[in-house]
Amino acid sequence: MKWIAFLLVAVAMVAGIVVSAAPTNGPASEDAAAPIYGITIPPGYRDWRLISVAHEAGNLNDLRAILGNDVAIKAYREGTLPFPDGTIIARLAWSYVPSEENNKVFGRAQSFVPGSAADWYLQLMVKDSKKYAATGGWGFAQFDKDGKPADEAKHKTCYPCHEPAKASDFVFTHYAP
Amino acid sequence: MKWIAFLLVAVAMVAGIVVSAAPTNGPASEDAAAPIYGITIPPGYRDWRLISVAHEAGNLNDLRAILGNDVAIKAYREGTLPFPDGTIIARLAWSYVPSEENNKVFGRAQSFVPGSAADWYLQLMVKDSKKYAATGGWGFAQFDKDGKPADEAKHKTCYPCHEPAKASDFVFTHYAP
Repeated sequence: MKWIAFLLVAVAMVAGIVVSAAPTNGPASEDAAAPIYGITIPPGYRDWRLISVAHEAGNLNDLRAILGNDVAIKAYREGTLPFPDGTIIARLAWSYVPSEENNKVFGRAQSFVPGSAADWYLQLMVKDSKKYAATGGWGFAQFDKDGKPADEAKHKTCYPCHEPAKASDFVFTHYAP
Repeated sequence: MKWIAFLLVAVAMVAGIVVSAAPTNGPASEDAAAPIYGITIPPGYRDWRLISVAHEAGNLNDLRAILGNDVAIKAYREGTLPFPDGTIIARLAWSYVPSEENNKVFGRAQSFVPGSAADWYLQLMVKDSKKYAATGGWGFAQFDKDGKPADEAKHKTCYPCHEPAKASDFVFTHYAP
């Protein structure tokens, strides 16, 4: 049965090489949970459907995409408020840079595209009305481009910042038609 | 068997009501094909995965999301060039408007979000190396927010504009990590 063991090892090695050679696709799901809310990066979030896009100028100076899991997309499209338990909204951000390549074609400086992943690449809102009852039913998490969560002090700022959006269940992003 | 027929009719009616009551979600797939390349709006494109986002200033003044079908996403992630036949890339655009709601929270004017669908809401690139051999293997299409295609003159401008991006198979958009 030695050849079977050999075959399994060979297959595992090839699989390992394939995985390590895959292009980076955002931070991987890590065991590291964000403080306070205990949220980890949900696998496959980069495959989620689009809710909207935005540009934040000022210090953030980013271009961002807001994606949602199936529960989030269904709620947005049906106008369900408050969002149901199980909703996860993911905000991805990249640095806001001019595209020399596009500007050459347009004949003027007008095109802005994502550069590298922003320092705080990934923000998450997770709906669990019981677990997160003290913060409007939402848990919040923020990760850098390597999947490392922000510290507790940073996470304490999430809910107070979202409180003004109470009328839309503490969510700022509207669905882009 | 009359009651079965009645039941079927009732179910069809309810289904019809549900469909017609669904929120608008971009222009529907219409029979109207865009000129020159004969492209129609692919069903479900609003559910496709995200390639990237961008802001075009100047006359366009929009925020845009670039989505891809499964063939497109696979090719982007694996760095496959030229893109394989069956690739479809969809560019959605919305007017670029300040968000008063977000700016109040940030305490300054820095937040820009999608307003209404842009005049030319949807642009498509469809790869078919045989059918579209004369234009780099790509067919192009442009639709307004009601799903009406642009005219022939407009479609004649697509390929010349994309020619400078020959090194990336005539595609401007890079994958946002």
